[in-house]
Amino acid sequence: MPKIVDHEKRRKQIAEATWRVILNEGIEGATVRNIAKEANISLGALRHYFATQDELLVYAMNLVKEQATERIKKIVVQDSQPKEIILNVLLELLPVNEETKAEMEVWFAFIGHVRHKQGILKLHDDGVYEGIKVLVENMVEYGLLKDGLDKEMETERLYSLIDGLALHAILEPGRLNKEKITRVLTYHLESIWV
Amino acid sequence: MPKIVDHEKRRKQIAEATWRVILNEGIEGATVRNIAKEANISLGALRHYFATQDELLVYAMNLVKEQATERIKKIVVQDSQPKEIILNVLLELLPVNEETKAEMEVWFAFIGHVRHKQGILKLHDDGVYEGIKVLVENMVEYGLLKDGLDKEMETERLYSLIDGLALHAILEPGRLNKEKITRVLTYHLESIWV
Repeated sequence: MPKIVDHEKRRKQIAEATWRVILNEGIEGATVRNIAKEANISLGALRHYFATQDELLVYAMNLVKEQATERIKKIVVQDSQPKEIILNVLLELLPVNEETKAEMEVWFAFIGHVRHKQGILKLHDDGVYEGIKVLVENMVEYGLLKDGLDKEMETERLYSLIDGLALHAILEPGRLNKEKITRVLTYHLESIWV
Repeated sequence: MPKIVDHEKRRKQIAEATWRVILNEGIEGATVRNIAKEANISLGALRHYFATQDELLVYAMNLVKEQATERIKKIVVQDSQPKEIILNVLLELLPVNEETKAEMEVWFAFIGHVRHKQGILKLHDDGVYEGIKVLVENMVEYGLLKDGLDKEMETERLYSLIDGLALHAILEPGRLNKEKITRVLTYHLESIWV
């Protein structure tokens, strides 16, 4: 196996260790020392793969985005009805299973951290706004959107609904389980679909 | 002035210093040392008013909640149309001015921090869900809600919309200014009102 593959594989393992640390201890616990320990490597070895803590955090977040994008790409090519595809794509952005729950926990911890590092770290764009904009345009193309609705407003509304639901589901998992999240999302979509 | 008033006044001043530290440096910078410095008192004096950092943070967050509640109480007794009152109450929960912006920044920093202190700190209930539930019930009482809408679903939808908008407005103030926030909220309310 060429060395470059080993290198990337090891970087991924370290990123995954980073997620575990954030999930268990929050972003405050995500020091290079703790991450090295979780990844079972020395501090020197970790520095070989990531020069700074910020570089590691940005890499770990990009990996979350890539994973979600891969899952969504698989849904989009499925042989299903447009309405079903749209609903399933949106569910990938909500904490409805262990994988998406962990992604969102890490995400919220990360944006809180990055907020106060302006100039050092650029706020990472998760691409969700752009993705939802495309979904609303798809609704128009497939003739799903009710007459008289405003595309820009529907994009903002759906985008806020998704991230608000994600936030509440993480903070109040007892009240907002998968079944209820799906019910609220379906209720909203049916209110704007023909 | 009786001593108890001085004591409470000083606690408020320390809480306000805590907000300033969180706004400037994030929750990671909100150490007792930094807060004492910002409040211009000794570490010993701070410990006299708050035994632990957690006690101080919880007090500072409760003060945010009290402030917002006071403002909302004033709106509710105004001699305006129910629709206008509801819109204005909801705007108090969104970062549309310096005061509410600061409150929400502090809030998001705080919930990120508390998440990983379970057992030590109970997640602080901001009362927004209960408040929105009451607003939706008021809509029904005043005959504002369209026929056929589901109260429980409308509560969840409005609650998610508010917190999603708040989150996005803090992260992307360039895209979501006061005018646009108000437009999205009004658009949503008009879609459910008769």
